[in-house]
Amino acid sequence: MKVKSLMDKKFIKIYPDFTVQTVIDLMYKNKKFSTPIVDNDGKMVGWTTAIDLMIVSDKNIPIKDIMSPIEDVIVVNKNEPAREAVTKIVEYKVISIPVLNDEGRVVGIVRNCDITKTLSKLYDIPVHSIFKSLMGELKGISWEELMNAAAIVTKQTTGEKITGEEYEKRIKGSTFGQAIWACGGLEKFFTDLIKIGEVALARKVSCKNVIKK
Amino acid sequence: MKVKSLMDKKFIKIYPDFTVQTVIDLMYKNKKFSTPIVDNDGKMVGWTTAIDLMIVSDKNIPIKDIMSPIEDVIVVNKNEPAREAVTKIVEYKVISIPVLNDEGRVVGIVRNCDITKTLSKLYDIPVHSIFKSLMGELKGISWEELMNAAAIVTKQTTGEKITGEEYEKRIKGSTFGQAIWACGGLEKFFTDLIKIGEVALARKVSCKNVIKK
Repeated sequence: MKVKSLMDKKFIKIYPDFTVQTVIDLMYKNKKFSTPIVDNDGKMVGWTTAIDLMIVSDKNIPIKDIMSPIEDVIVVNKNEPAREAVTKIVEYKVISIPVLNDEGRVVGIVRNCDITKTLSKLYDIPVHSIFKSLMGELKGISWEELMNAAAIVTKQTTGEKITGEEYEKRIKGSTFGQAIWACGGLEKFFTDLIKIGEVALARKVSCKNVIKK
Repeated sequence: MKVKSLMDKKFIKIYPDFTVQTVIDLMYKNKKFSTPIVDNDGKMVGWTTAIDLMIVSDKNIPIKDIMSPIEDVIVVNKNEPAREAVTKIVEYKVISIPVLNDEGRVVGIVRNCDITKTLSKLYDIPVHSIFKSLMGELKGISWEELMNAAAIVTKQTTGEKITGEEYEKRIKGSTFGQAIWACGGLEKFFTDLIKIGEVALARKVSCKNVIKK
């Protein structure tokens, strides 16, 4: 995923000669906490935020007099990995980052809320669907057998007695995010899944052996 | 994980009788885009943002005259799951949420940047450490055998010819976040890992059989 897939292409155009009052009006109307300032070619020349604007007393001066010049602004190129924008937001504690193309023109803004939205989607994946994938991989194992195996692994790892049916109820409506917090980290979650798969397979094999005998 | 583990306990105390100018000065000094307003008991009575403050012309009026009253503000209880704060930030497109205790007192703020930081930590887990967990689970499988199995699964799923050594180089320095994007989703990533574990085990078993013969 690249920055260009994460960015918001809609942003207000602010030119260096706009008065502070005009910029305030536009930002207030569009509910924006920050905005890039561009020249007539669309190239970025500066950046301003609502924090900078609220302390200006003379609202008739041009925005270029109080904006942060481009050399002081954290920017990201549209072709960089999306990860880069996330790292910069976290590192520099900014709420948004202007996205430039190779010519230095502003083509979008990556906002913190867009990142939260994208990252949180991952957390929203139902645990149920991960178990379905696991079942698809473990050929010949039924859903019931998988849930019984999960109950056995739960008992082994936590000591808690639980049936396959109860386990199924527990994961119903549960998300990947919740599961990670619940079992103490991603690696732990993954290890438990592998164990469940192994137990399900082992039980299947031992059942077959019993039948053969 | 609960909201209280995610929140920032440091926030500026703003009282309803503070003038707009005082609030602006405090927010500017502390680089805050938003702040709760509390009564003498610490109970939340309102909320304001830099966007609201930049349009105020008379800076001598008290903040209570222009703040959003508490009934219009999105809040979260400190004992709710952290997930609740994330959902509200995404749904209402706010940059931060005040955290209240059961008595309605402000005890912290959940900021969008804190959420991004927490969520992105998951993305930063090295793929390497997930494979190490897998190896720990697959008793008797060496790192080299696991990498060879991964190369075989890569060939099966993508058609690409790759050696175990090349696979190891590829995952070196790669994170969980990159791996998810690279293989097309979380479920796909898990499924591939499970396949790799199975292939490694199957190869081990067939080797043993050869030796026995």
